[in-house]
Amino acid sequence: MNYSQMDPAEVRRLIREGEITGPTSGMCAGYAQANLVILPKDLAYDFLLFTQRNQKSCPILEVSDMGSRSLKYIANNVDIAKDIPKYRVYEDGILTGEYTSVEHLWRDNFVSFLIGCSFSFESELLEAGISIRHIEENCNVPMFKTNIECEPAGIFNGKMVVSMRPIPYDQIVKSVMVTGTMPKVHGAPIHIGDPSVIGISDVTKPDFGDSVQIKEGEVPVFWPCGVTPQSVVMNVKPKIVITHSPGHMLITDVKNVDLKY
Amino acid sequence: MNYSQMDPAEVRRLIREGEITGPTSGMCAGYAQANLVILPKDLAYDFLLFTQRNQKSCPILEVSDMGSRSLKYIANNVDIAKDIPKYRVYEDGILTGEYTSVEHLWRDNFVSFLIGCSFSFESELLEAGISIRHIEENCNVPMFKTNIECEPAGIFNGKMVVSMRPIPYDQIVKSVMVTGTMPKVHGAPIHIGDPSVIGISDVTKPDFGDSVQIKEGEVPVFWPCGVTPQSVVMNVKPKIVITHSPGHMLITDVKNVDLKY
Repeated sequence: MNYSQMDPAEVRRLIREGEITGPTSGMCAGYAQANLVILPKDLAYDFLLFTQRNQKSCPILEVSDMGSRSLKYIANNVDIAKDIPKYRVYEDGILTGEYTSVEHLWRDNFVSFLIGCSFSFESELLEAGISIRHIEENCNVPMFKTNIECEPAGIFNGKMVVSMRPIPYDQIVKSVMVTGTMPKVHGAPIHIGDPSVIGISDVTKPDFGDSVQIKEGEVPVFWPCGVTPQSVVMNVKPKIVITHSPGHMLITDVKNVDLKY
Repeated sequence: MNYSQMDPAEVRRLIREGEITGPTSGMCAGYAQANLVILPKDLAYDFLLFTQRNQKSCPILEVSDMGSRSLKYIANNVDIAKDIPKYRVYEDGILTGEYTSVEHLWRDNFVSFLIGCSFSFESELLEAGISIRHIEENCNVPMFKTNIECEPAGIFNGKMVVSMRPIPYDQIVKSVMVTGTMPKVHGAPIHIGDPSVIGISDVTKPDFGDSVQIKEGEVPVFWPCGVTPQSVVMNVKPKIVITHSPGHMLITDVKNVDLKY
């Protein structure tokens, strides 16, 4: 099946029916995909305030109504407990299971946070003629913990996680301009060049994802990463939190280009 | 005194000491001013979610920690209970008093929301050579209730309020481009032209503020307005809510140009 050219509603149906259980990268070209964090309502205010204070790493696309499994803005006819190919469930900070549906775990006090994903700006970078190394190398983007403290909010605090893409000198400005137009999906880089400035001691040893080659004449460019909110939530070890499994995103009905406005 | 060229910290000191009790328009040129809504914590989640869903009319600059009278991000050494020249207190939806300080009313469960203000983009429009009629006519900007439904969140819902500025045909595009770079202070217009399209029956009879002249060859241009959040809060008649008095804003340490990034 060529999922790249399919409609988001159709692919979500296949996911809901268990026909698709793998990563969503490359599916429904041109449409935004979203990270998921589901929390009980008693943590939702602090988390929403955290995202408000840290919009670069935690750009909110939608927050569901409490208890609701549907969304109102970024996708139609969603069942958020079923429409992601793989979920992770953490209890007291420990991964207790991966599921293709979390219907059996659903609670009336759950609030779902859908957070922008760098897939959207990568598609714009490619359109602008900027190659993306981890796509060329067919692996996951390298991600690093930094020394950049997030702005704390209530019980939530922690360091920013960044993703890294090597960019040739003559495309650095363009890569800033292109991603800078998309603040709802992390926006412009947070750092360009010397990794040690943001507390990264070895750029060949990412904390998450895979290592990629940095060629002669290329500079490591770092963007705020959607792993930040998950990492910050894990810090406080909530009784229960449900997230997507890495790479297994919600495919939305929102076109990437519409995230610019 | 020439407050226009003074430092925000110095003007806030004069306000705190009761030396300034009037409107802040024109003070501390180049620095952003902010709208204020203070609510008890039990309403704060719904209101924060409302602002997240209605960012054009309710662009949040900062949300205080519960009970705190200081701010962390947009201004230093603030006492939010004293540093605004005039406050309004509403109880059960009724205006019960105007005060130059609300220290005596402060509660440990208060949360302060500081919301972007169109003074910031007006200063950019003027820089770009676009005249602003209500400044020329030395009156308040005309504001209108529209038929545009805000996205509801919890107990909060209502119509968007807009401000109107007449713009000559040959400056409309420029006015969109200039304000579009400043989404944290309402951003681009929400409507250009025929007022009836957004439910305004008589553009010479504003619901708030003053009427201004629309000259031959000018078009009414409408921007989302910071009166929206106040109007929505009043709809639900909370036990207590404190706001700034119209035109009596918080002067921040943030330069208008920095609201672009």
